Amino acid sequence: MIKRLALIGTGLIGGSLALALKSANYAEHIVGYNLDLTVSEQAKSRGIIDSIAETIPETIQSANVIVLAVPMGAMASVMTTLAPHLTNDMVLTDVGSVKTCVAQVAEQVLQAKHVRFIPGHPIAGTEQSGPAAALATLYQQQRVVLTPGEDADQQAVTIIEAMWQAAGAEVVRLSVAQHDAMLAATSHLPHILAFNLVSLLAQGPDADDVLNYAAGGFRDFSRIASSHPAMWRDICLTNREAILPILADYQQQLTHIQTAIEQQQGEALLTLFEQAKQMRDARFLAEK
Amino acid sequence: MIKRLALIGTGLIGGSLALALKSANYAEHIVGYNLDLTVSEQAKSRGIIDSIAETIPETIQSANVIVLAVPMGAMASVMTTLAPHLTNDMVLTDVGSVKTCVAQVAEQVLQAKHVRFIPGHPIAGTEQSGPAAALATLYQQQRVVLTPGEDADQQAVTIIEAMWQAAGAEVVRLSVAQHDAMLAATSHLPHILAFNLVSLLAQGPDADDVLNYAAGGFRDFSRIASSHPAMWRDICLTNREAILPILADYQQQLTHIQTAIEQQQGEALLTLFEQAKQMRDARFLAEK
Repeated sequence: MIKRLALIGTGLIGGSLALALKSANYAEHIVGYNLDLTVSEQAKSRGIIDSIAETIPETIQSANVIVLAVPMGAMASVMTTLAPHLTNDMVLTDVGSVKTCVAQVAEQVLQAKHVRFIPGHPIAGTEQSGPAAALATLYQQQRVVLTPGEDADQQAVTIIEAMWQAAGAEVVRLSVAQHDAMLAATSHLPHILAFNLVSLLAQGPDADDVLNYAAGGFRDFSRIASSHPAMWRDICLTNREAILPILADYQQQLTHIQTAIEQQQGEALLTLFEQAKQMRDARFLAEK
Repeated sequence: MIKRLALIGTGLIGGSLALALKSANYAEHIVGYNLDLTVSEQAKSRGIIDSIAETIPETIQSANVIVLAVPMGAMASVMTTLAPHLTNDMVLTDVGSVKTCVAQVAEQVLQAKHVRFIPGHPIAGTEQSGPAAALATLYQQQRVVLTPGEDADQQAVTIIEAMWQAAGAEVVRLSVAQHDAMLAATSHLPHILAFNLVSLLAQGPDADDVLNYAAGGFRDFSRIASSHPAMWRDICLTNREAILPILADYQQQLTHIQTAIEQQQGEALLTLFEQAKQMRDARFLAEK
């Protein structure tokens, strides 16, 4: 049970955590902060937060746990603002999609107190954003990755782990490098690919009509291209070290497919498509 | 109302058409043929067909409408087998995903009778296949494209149009070239991109674990990578004239994104992502 939770950012990710903790009776009081006060008011009216704070120092005052649920691009400035007001009994975590840069910023900005910052990332979300999109069930049976450093306070790790478990998630630990490479492959690259396709079609001569010939397969494939553009710009820039190698591999293999189509190498295409189907079915078929 | 419908291929696409026509009372008798007799037996036990034929000539005997619902790779051989048995009162259509090659084959193989062959393509489907996956509602409010040639028999066009409307679809007409370019962009390219990503991950060092870090976004993005590999090999090969240019454009723009990430050009990324989100939301947001 968390006595006082400070939630900086009450959108889809932070708001869903708050709703889950409330429905599990795991947070006595949640105080929320957003740059835009009307977002805080929306969050309060949806029952995501119990009270609104108007500054970051006010938000974290007397908090036991602080959750940073802001876009990657805002993480450094938020951490800089709250650092002087952190006390030694507070535990801090974040939900950012890229962990290398967050861990670096924390070490610089929080200095000795960084041992009670436990970086985290819930592997869940939708293409929507804002408090209106928050769901109490978003993390049910989803993975949350924690990437505590070697010198992390173990009690702090336990507190953050228990919080996510109370929200319904399965908690796993990875190094920041492992996390960022995994997510580059399974999340960041797919987003880039989907954004790229829809943007290409938007520039074509049939842009007004082409999507009327798109069926359910395209709708699902391109759903992530409806994600928040500024958030994804930030992710691309902050995780570029992990994204660029897998993007290069992707392009190289796409060129192989192009060659196989040009030269009518049916066997090469079949092998690759079968490999993909087999892997995807093994992971997701049971979920259907 | 169709008195006798000959259905060559009773899988997801053909089977769903049959179920839709039956539930609309639009087909008095449907006779089905598959290369594999056990597939025909499955289709009969699901009520997709009324009777089973064991050869193609037997299937089309006395038929009013013949629907070719076989993979693209089988289209030429099926058409060659049935051509000598076609009579002048029969109307023939197909459901192939690529129309240029089907129209060419028909002109060669059917000769004068090709005027009663009305190429068609329902823009609907799932990643599944076979009679077990067929759904009576698959075509409800979905588009079906017909690509009749200039010399097409107008009565035959009307018969095929009415059949699809009875199955719940909206029928539109395009030229074969328009159709193949539209589908290369909205269906064939996305399938290639999804197959390519999952195949790449299957070859990585973390292949056994990486998809455990994949969330709903990846599941939806990669759903089409569970599609039938041989069918998609055939589509890639038969529609290569339309696929190769859009695939080249896609790669070129992906290289721009790569450069923007490398050089940290946030504005360029934001513009492209915003363009994509705007177009996708405009088409699909109302459907959510």
